Amino acid sequence: MNTTEHMTEVVQRYVAALNEGDLEGIVALYADDATVEDPVGSEPQRGIEAIRAFYANSLKLKLEVALTGEVRAVANEAAFAFTVGFDYQGRKSVISPIDHFRFNEAGKVISMRALFGPANIHQA
Amino acid sequence: MNTTEHMTEVVQRYVAALNEGDLEGIVALYADDATVEDPVGSEPQRGIEAIRAFYANSLKLKLEVALTGEVRAVANEAAFAFTVGFDYQGRKSVISPIDHFRFNEAGKVISMRALFGPANIHQA
Repeated sequence: MNTTEHMTEVVQRYVAALNEGDLEGIVALYADDATVEDPVGSEPQRGIEAIRAFYANSLKLKLEVALTGEVRAVANEAAFAFTVGFDYQGRKSVISPIDHFRFNEAGKVISMRALFGPANIHQA
Repeated sequence: MNTTEHMTEVVQRYVAALNEGDLEGIVALYADDATVEDPVGSEPQRGIEAIRAFYANSLKLKLEVALTGEVRAVANEAAFAFTVGFDYQGRKSVISPIDHFRFNEAGKVISMRALFGPANIHQA
């Protein structure tokens, strides 16, 4: 069983790595056989190479990521609300997802799902 | 597929019913064969009678429930961060979960999971 402290730290490292554009820092948090469904409802990325390619594409934009509340963590799962700001074609956008991480026994993220819909995408 | 608007409204009705101690208002949001896992990691309540009993017990305390951000909703799923305040044995406590609802095609909640751990329980 993963501790609350470990899962919370992984979330904080994830947020920091997104802000720093640190692709390998992000990938290091995932298990080799992890899946990433971002957003929920899309076809999941399966396996670390697909996940690396997915984040490499995301990091083409400079992201400003901030938690908007405490990390919830228990029983090998964590959830957290946050904002992701970026400029796209000269326009400032902010998306407000809730992400869900499931951890394997080695302490790596085995499943990530990012839940946001059209009402959670804001344009300045 | 459930609309964002419907799922957001169900979450708002859920929060209002918790605040009002409206047991049947809560139960009406759930499918007959729904499950409630609260907190994540506990044995789920299965079926509407078990769910009614679960909430009847919860509502023995006067709850003060407030969303702490926008409802995230897409693809038959919703997630929301909130606080639940209550007095227990003369002591004021606040729990800060993130709940996840999955909806069936009839627009009812078929699965609820409440994710919070020891670090999300605060005592005044």
